[in-house]
Amino acid sequence: MENPVAKANILIEALPYIQRLSGKTVIIKYGGNAMIDHEQIKTIMQDITLLKYVGVNPVVVHGGGPEISRTLSLMNVESRFYKGLRITDKDAIEVVQMVLTGKINKDIVAQLNALGGKAIGISGMDGALLQAEKMEPVDGVDLGYVGKVTNVNSRVLEILANDDYIPVVAPIGIGPDGTAYNINADTAASEIAAAMKAEKLIFLTDIDGIYRNPEDPSSLISAISVPEVNELIKQGVISGGMIPKVQGCIKGVEMGVKRTHILNGTIPHPILLEIFTDVGIGTMVTA
Amino acid sequence: MENPVAKANILIEALPYIQRLSGKTVIIKYGGNAMIDHEQIKTIMQDITLLKYVGVNPVVVHGGGPEISRTLSLMNVESRFYKGLRITDKDAIEVVQMVLTGKINKDIVAQLNALGGKAIGISGMDGALLQAEKMEPVDGVDLGYVGKVTNVNSRVLEILANDDYIPVVAPIGIGPDGTAYNINADTAASEIAAAMKAEKLIFLTDIDGIYRNPEDPSSLISAISVPEVNELIKQGVISGGMIPKVQGCIKGVEMGVKRTHILNGTIPHPILLEIFTDVGIGTMVTA
Amino acid sequence: MENPVAKANILIEALPYIQRLSGKTVIIKYGGNAMIDHEQIKTIMQDITLLKYVGVNPVVVHGGGPEISRTLSLMNVESRFYKGLRITDKDAIEVVQMVLTGKINKDIVAQLNALGGKAIGISGMDGALLQAEKMEPVDGVDLGYVGKVTNVNSRVLEILANDDYIPVVAPIGIGPDGTAYNINADTAASEIAAAMKAEKLIFLTDIDGIYRNPEDPSSLISAISVPEVNELIKQGVISGGMIPKVQGCIKGVEMGVKRTHILNGTIPHPILLEIFTDVGIGTMVTA
Amino acid sequence: MENPVAKANILIEALPYIQRLSGKTVIIKYGGNAMIDHEQIKTIMQDITLLKYVGVNPVVVHGGGPEISRTLSLMNVESRFYKGLRITDKDAIEVVQMVLTGKINKDIVAQLNALGGKAIGISGMDGALLQAEKMEPVDGVDLGYVGKVTNVNSRVLEILANDDYIPVVAPIGIGPDGTAYNINADTAASEIAAAMKAEKLIFLTDIDGIYRNPEDPSSLISAISVPEVNELIKQGVISGGMIPKVQGCIKGVEMGVKRTHILNGTIPHPILLEIFTDVGIGTMVTA
Amino acid sequence: MENPVAKANILIEALPYIQRLSGKTVIIKYGGNAMIDHEQIKTIMQDITLLKYVGVNPVVVHGGGPEISRTLSLMNVESRFYKGLRITDKDAIEVVQMVLTGKINKDIVAQLNALGGKAIGISGMDGALLQAEKMEPVDGVDLGYVGKVTNVNSRVLEILANDDYIPVVAPIGIGPDGTAYNINADTAASEIAAAMKAEKLIFLTDIDGIYRNPEDPSSLISAISVPEVNELIKQGVISGGMIPKVQGCIKGVEMGVKRTHILNGTIPHPILLEIFTDVGIGTMVTA
Amino acid sequence: MENPVAKANILIEALPYIQRLSGKTVIIKYGGNAMIDHEQIKTIMQDITLLKYVGVNPVVVHGGGPEISRTLSLMNVESRFYKGLRITDKDAIEVVQMVLTGKINKDIVAQLNALGGKAIGISGMDGALLQAEKMEPVDGVDLGYVGKVTNVNSRVLEILANDDYIPVVAPIGIGPDGTAYNINADTAASEIAAAMKAEKLIFLTDIDGIYRNPEDPSSLISAISVPEVNELIKQGVISGGMIPKVQGCIKGVEMGVKRTHILNGTIPHPILLEIFTDVGIGTMVTA
Repeated sequence: MENPVAKANILIEALPYIQRLSGKTVIIKYGGNAMIDHEQIKTIMQDITLLKYVGVNPVVVHGGGPEISRTLSLMNVESRFYKGLRITDKDAIEVVQMVLTGKINKDIVAQLNALGGKAIGISGMDGALLQAEKMEPVDGVDLGYVGKVTNVNSRVLEILANDDYIPVVAPIGIGPDGTAYNINADTAASEIAAAMKAEKLIFLTDIDGIYRNPEDPSSLISAISVPEVNELIKQGVISGGMIPKVQGCIKGVEMGVKRTHILNGTIPHPILLEIFTDVGIGTMVTA
Repeated sequence: MENPVAKANILIEALPYIQRLSGKTVIIKYGGNAMIDHEQIKTIMQDITLLKYVGVNPVVVHGGGPEISRTLSLMNVESRFYKGLRITDKDAIEVVQMVLTGKINKDIVAQLNALGGKAIGISGMDGALLQAEKMEPVDGVDLGYVGKVTNVNSRVLEILANDDYIPVVAPIGIGPDGTAYNINADTAASEIAAAMKAEKLIFLTDIDGIYRNPEDPSSLISAISVPEVNELIKQGVISGGMIPKVQGCIKGVEMGVKRTHILNGTIPHPILLEIFTDVGIGTMVTA
Repeated sequence: MENPVAKANILIEALPYIQRLSGKTVIIKYGGNAMIDHEQIKTIMQDITLLKYVGVNPVVVHGGGPEISRTLSLMNVESRFYKGLRITDKDAIEVVQMVLTGKINKDIVAQLNALGGKAIGISGMDGALLQAEKMEPVDGVDLGYVGKVTNVNSRVLEILANDDYIPVVAPIGIGPDGTAYNINADTAASEIAAAMKAEKLIFLTDIDGIYRNPEDPSSLISAISVPEVNELIKQGVISGGMIPKVQGCIKGVEMGVKRTHILNGTIPHPILLEIFTDVGIGTMVTA
Repeated sequence: MENPVAKANILIEALPYIQRLSGKTVIIKYGGNAMIDHEQIKTIMQDITLLKYVGVNPVVVHGGGPEISRTLSLMNVESRFYKGLRITDKDAIEVVQMVLTGKINKDIVAQLNALGGKAIGISGMDGALLQAEKMEPVDGVDLGYVGKVTNVNSRVLEILANDDYIPVVAPIGIGPDGTAYNINADTAASEIAAAMKAEKLIFLTDIDGIYRNPEDPSSLISAISVPEVNELIKQGVISGGMIPKVQGCIKGVEMGVKRTHILNGTIPHPILLEIFTDVGIGTMVTA
Repeated sequence: MENPVAKANILIEALPYIQRLSGKTVIIKYGGNAMIDHEQIKTIMQDITLLKYVGVNPVVVHGGGPEISRTLSLMNVESRFYKGLRITDKDAIEVVQMVLTGKINKDIVAQLNALGGKAIGISGMDGALLQAEKMEPVDGVDLGYVGKVTNVNSRVLEILANDDYIPVVAPIGIGPDGTAYNINADTAASEIAAAMKAEKLIFLTDIDGIYRNPEDPSSLISAISVPEVNELIKQGVISGGMIPKVQGCIKGVEMGVKRTHILNGTIPHPILLEIFTDVGIGTMVTA
Repeated sequence: MENPVAKANILIEALPYIQRLSGKTVIIKYGGNAMIDHEQIKTIMQDITLLKYVGVNPVVVHGGGPEISRTLSLMNVESRFYKGLRITDKDAIEVVQMVLTGKINKDIVAQLNALGGKAIGISGMDGALLQAEKMEPVDGVDLGYVGKVTNVNSRVLEILANDDYIPVVAPIGIGPDGTAYNINADTAASEIAAAMKAEKLIFLTDIDGIYRNPEDPSSLISAISVPEVNELIKQGVISGGMIPKVQGCIKGVEMGVKRTHILNGTIPHPILLEIFTDVGIGTMVTA
């Protein structure tokens, strides 16, 4: 009889966390780099479905870099970047829009629906959710159809969430004349989190979190403030590939989200472990 | 990392059960014999609170035989029974009403509230929930203020459940002139389950369920139909003290409840184990 | 034909009072000393039922001192007081809770329901209505489980009142850990009146009101302000047993209730006479 | 103190009647002949206002024969009748419309509003409440703009009643092309009562009710069925001017209204006496 | 195929205007002088019906001077004026009330209903919409039952508009005691526009708008501010019969309405041309 | 002044059509062949936006054959057909899904939003709108991921339409395991029309409608029943490329849609001309 009681205790362990998040909105940025294999992705879809069923309102914002590059190459369009930003000309934006809103978005929707979650996939163009304008050139380099968000109209997300749907959002913005713009997915997630006064903003990436010493797995930081993050960057502790990973959290905090998290989306059930158990994984960044 | 994944898997194991019961009503009859010690009772309160938070509507109907006898004896009123039914004269009904609605009911409410569940304790007198009349004499023996239910007005339960409260019901009925009647708690639970078209009716007792051979713990029956129960009674397999324990289920099924359960309320987290895990405990009785 | 017209005129006399109170909340503190005999109590229940049916929202808060003492004595628990406050040890609070929430509360509910009013009896423990903590010792005397209100959560009262129920409240508070506390009924009524922004707070006692000269029945004061009351206390006009009777009104006014009333609950239909006729009885205390 | 108690008892006497009619619709046909002097009319307006405030939904349908004749004569238009029906030519219908909807309707509204009732006066033309077509000639006599009701659209009455207004209706019907038709007020009241599934339909006339022997005031019939009424007509007991007075009730009953009443609108507070006291006046006609 | 495309283009031309006014309230003051012949009036009724069906909330406030004078003369009551204001004695107010609320109001309702618009005609007396008191004497001349508005209770208009009705209002006010007062229709329209925070207030008169040079039809002013109007009056450009025509707009602007319009109600479809086409007619007066 | 009046008359001509369709649902199947040039498409977007603003609920279901073929060829995937049905293997369904839901769907949304319509683009996968299973092989030829609709869950469309959004649907179905299926767009439109009890189902194609004699433009049939269509097919009057064009209408009628229309989507404003003018274009097919 020991095993059943252990099971029961784990469920009961989740109770206070469920109570605290009941009725709250949690934004999950699901990056392309964290979309590994089908089995792993399924554990994340299960986490999101469970969130919905225990009374939390999850909203998924996804990326899709690798898939975009793959399709561009299939269609013989060259992928060009400047300082990590994709230079998105007329041909490229068509493919970006098509892959994000037509492929990745719908694949996530399909998996959530197959698990019993009622998901609806839309883009930032739908209902003018992510209103955008062309981004200024960076160092004089015109990035093409890369946009910056001018306004978020989150009403459609609220309507869907209130009717028990899980909204899944592709980060394509829309200009006043209907032009599509490629929006950085971290920014889109932060903007939506701010507009919906989300309780949490979770970034699913391919790292475990921020380390004091990247060589030492035991030096993972559980909780840190934005000033401390900036200090660690100055000290060179956070450096190289780590820097873009923490940008999302910083953006989110700057826009007023109280709790932002970096979680490793390549391990099974990361959201659930972070949110509903005493284990706690990843790094939480707060103001 | 093995342990966290195991934790996650147990939570995910609950997902399909949560989905199936989402928005449904579950009536829990909590018998006085199953109220053992404070720690054990707390695990049941946790189970009920968890049910509420994952979107199920639990309604608790409680008994209280031992406590009633204890108080009567404290007040020097003799406890008299006929065929297991308490003979409830004028003095006794006052004490029964007081103990059930004023002591046990409020103690359950207090514990649920302390765990974060928003519980409201009422009796069958409130809002004329359990309308009753005097029961006919049994074998010519007048049972006094023992009532039988003539009508159930479950509106107040629906209002409270819709506003996120957990209703806790003491089984005292009310006559047209306001007279209080002692109602059998199993019957009260069955009547309320039928009126609310509950998905499940759970009897928390002090036995594990129905055994084919009471001597053999491995002979516990997981699922059985009412005709089979009656057959087992005829065969003498179910006999003695076991008989009253299955009556509640039979009553519930006869009133149209699809699934009724006998669970052992003296082990930790029985509701949660039955409802949210693959373990499955107790005996389910169906039509 | 004269008699019918006179009847009609009395009904019409009520019209402006009904209009003025339509949709408003009236809190009625029904003290144990005012609960005399069955016939008299019935007239008060009729008054409350009528209030509800003409569009006013009555909320009853009851006391029960005499009944508590009677039951304690039956159970051989000694009643002890310090400066008029009941010293409530572990044994006593169990009885206080049981008598107030299980006996008096349900008896009032039964009578209102028998008259066609839809009453629901709850306590301050239900829905965490009266959140409380242990009261500080008075003159170094520990009063035991006597509580002071820290917060009122009147939502359950509003839900019930909006669905045409008459809430009846027993003044037992609840601590964060679920501990029951004995709350002074006058205070409970004042707190609830303040939380619900009640239009009126009525104290049904066993005196006619405040007299300028207790010997002279014609010196009853119809309306008085709290400063004047304090002045009369200083002058010794209000003295002895009169003082606790006016405390409730003073508390209510201090908490922001506009009109508080002392009415004699031992005469027939006192609420109705005060509220719906030109007669006007008792004493009104205002800021 | 006796007087106040007597007052209270009269109010309490009304309680069961209020409970029975709570939330129900009562149609009051107020005939022109019953509009005597200002003081008397005021008592009727008070009755209607009181009905509204105690939770009943009164709808007033008025006539206005005498005032129409007076105005026609002022404007030098001849009043012509055939078998008691006004022959309503083009000039006459303009005056009938104007007097009923512009004078009597608004005078009733003004009096109800002055008493604190929120009244809204409309006609059968508004919101296409009383859809009508030209009545066939009677004995070959063309009655002009006299209409018969083809459909009742009572939605506007329900909207107004739900928002605490007292609707007051002038019996002018409307044809598909917008033509105004003079509608018999008794018929209009019966049609509206049937469409709104009214609980009661009251005709305020200038007689006390139906007498078995018109010479003998003690022979007033309290309650009678339509077949009995027809029998009394055949026997000549109901005859002459009495016949049209009972037609309204018969129409109402035929259209499915359960209780129809003839009350004397020339005595003070007739509605209130009939509805809220044990006195009971007038004659009730049922199926 | 050219013709159909031209038709389509005209409908499409209306789209941005419809979008801009969607869900907004537009008050239409329809003056007695603008009610010419049946065919012309019908075009205005069509305009109002179309407004309602494309999602705008029109509210009609009508005058009726000529018809009042005609009826007074028919009834041998003399029409007397002082400075353009009707001296309204007891006899006159009865006729004014009757003609405005019983004749003109219902005729407009009949025409709107015949066109498929669901119109409800009320007066300022109904639901105490236009609360009024007697106007002070002008130059010592007592104007009788001429009122000035003390308060507007526009709730009934909002209820009706929300349920897809077109409210039509006759400008009769009501005193606290129910007395009817004749209210200037321009003032009534301005007061209602202010109370309902209307988007537009349109005066349908018998002139095309304000001319810089009344002799020169090409000098019609499309848009003008109140200070400019006052300047033109000072310069004598706006003079004589033109002055009262602009008073309504000035009143409306002073009460906070953003856009007020003078339109010629004697040409076909003036509202529709102004609101839904690029043509634009009349004069708009703004702050 | 002639021109403005002509304009007004055209708007008024639309009034009865607007009244008839107010609050009704109209499904518009917009076929890939009808998507010609940007200017022409814009007129259709304007028509749909206007529909929404005058109170009709348009739902757009689009095709996209030509664009799919273009993209497949760009990605070097061969387009294969059997009897006009696209053989959709694993590679092809990915592209079909991506082009329909990610390109065409979002382009329509972008254009509607740029015109002020609030459009939301989803697919049949979202919210499990179009539940599907693999179609049986045709003549033994396996068509791959071509699906047939097993159930329509139109709730998400109703939610969006009720909140003033214009839903735009890409015809991709979803299997129980989340597999995407290519659904014939005509079938998808008919299924959705039936599920939403649409008033009208419009097919925008590249022909004017059904001709009795394809050589003779004057032989266009305005209205025809399904039996007559079948008769014309048997007679060879409707033949060749015309047959698939009428299939959509037949399907729609068979599923219970009352009015189905073939309109030429390559002329300006076809929806508006058909729905809101007396012109009437195309062919209506009814039961």
